[in-house]
Amino acid sequence: MNDHGTMPRVHLVGAGPGDPGLFTLRGAEVLRQADVVLHDRLVHPEVLRHARSGALLVYVGKEGGGEQVAQEETIAQLLAHARRGRRVVRLKGGDPFVFGRGGEEAMALARAGIPFGVVPGVSSGIAAPAAAGIPVTHRGLAAAVTFASASLARGGPDWAHLARSPTLVLFMVGHGLAVATRALLAAGRAAQTPAAVIESGTWEDQQVITGPLAELADRAGPRLRGGPALLVVGEVVGLRDAWVAATLAIPEERAS
Amino acid sequence: MNDHGTMPRVHLVGAGPGDPGLFTLRGAEVLRQADVVLHDRLVHPEVLRHARSGALLVYVGKEGGGEQVAQEETIAQLLAHARRGRRVVRLKGGDPFVFGRGGEEAMALARAGIPFGVVPGVSSGIAAPAAAGIPVTHRGLAAAVTFASASLARGGPDWAHLARSPTLVLFMVGHGLAVATRALLAAGRAAQTPAAVIESGTWEDQQVITGPLAELADRAGPRLRGGPALLVVGEVVGLRDAWVAATLAIPEERAS
Repeated sequence: MNDHGTMPRVHLVGAGPGDPGLFTLRGAEVLRQADVVLHDRLVHPEVLRHARSGALLVYVGKEGGGEQVAQEETIAQLLAHARRGRRVVRLKGGDPFVFGRGGEEAMALARAGIPFGVVPGVSSGIAAPAAAGIPVTHRGLAAAVTFASASLARGGPDWAHLARSPTLVLFMVGHGLAVATRALLAAGRAAQTPAAVIESGTWEDQQVITGPLAELADRAGPRLRGGPALLVVGEVVGLRDAWVAATLAIPEERAS
Repeated sequence: MNDHGTMPRVHLVGAGPGDPGLFTLRGAEVLRQADVVLHDRLVHPEVLRHARSGALLVYVGKEGGGEQVAQEETIAQLLAHARRGRRVVRLKGGDPFVFGRGGEEAMALARAGIPFGVVPGVSSGIAAPAAAGIPVTHRGLAAAVTFASASLARGGPDWAHLARSPTLVLFMVGHGLAVATRALLAAGRAAQTPAAVIESGTWEDQQVITGPLAELADRAGPRLRGGPALLVVGEVVGLRDAWVAATLAIPEERAS
């Protein structure tokens, strides 16, 4: 609802990190009312089941190359459906504004003069660590957490800045894991800093691999399966063992 | 559900940033089943209405001094109810692990050998800026965002680190606003950097005040009403004007 008591017909919606229970009540509500749903690869199929039967579901996920073109096409589709007066949901994995490119879509709608609403989501940068027994902040251990993306930084990430954050969560790390851990070590992060890779966090096939920062890439690299992966670095990772011992809800690491 | 197909009886649950539509489906589900709900001040009353009639609702919010004692009492209550076999929800504003002290409660449950589940929430650090027309990350402007708390840092925040983050979101800034903006300027952040204070983000009485970093404390200080406030610093704040023009869902700044 806006100040005039009307509901915008276009919404940018976060689907949450994977686990369909982490979708929001408002997200489910606007999805039920949508005529058209433009969704990503990283949206759980159970989340899409909130859409009414008869809604047009369009997969606009990006995989591999041609990313810029795909994003422009997505925005073109979003604007075209909106201009036809349809109720449109742009449904994105995690939160739309944490490395989700939701800001670009918001600005395109703004430039086109199309009113829209936003429905934030649970970010995988917070929820995937929690599902792995890692609180991203913790009194006495981490009074700051930095979320960063290697792929979005012009001229590459500011590794000196990232290395200094009490907790660092690096998104979309997959093939770049060894590059990232080496860069953090070179920027001064201690070799023994507890670190984890979380692949497909909160999904049924979540995988967690831990180790000292200097050893993590060797340990985790061969086991990654190509799912969305986060690198978590900081003393908070060391809380995981005690936490996991208490809650069987968290899949144990299958150490080799 | 855990690996053995049973649902833990104790849950740490994020209530989201305020707006009750940003509560999660799983959060609502475990709240409906709870015998006891231990909740904070920063939980919207509409969220509490998901609890069944007859559930014991206990306010354990902290205001002002005596914080450490209050936290110990909260943990003692949590353990006592759990040991009596009750279904307990510890309901916290935002996400439990982003300056919510959820990690301390998780570790206390772990030490006591009590299985528990976690239900992450939408963090106010992401959702309040979004509701104010500010994406915390944006391609070409911010490939990293740091969430920090002035009050949790031992020996004070690492201002040099915080000043260097493309986007900074500083929690619980209220009375410390002038101290924070001066410290960021002293640590090298440019005086003209776009900045905003968001008070009671996503609540009905949300207030957004923007200005260059060097002027923000003077501009905002007299207008703050004592609600939870975030400081947002970075070029992404500059996207707000175009965004707000397109969506009347966002309360306009009432500039003096």
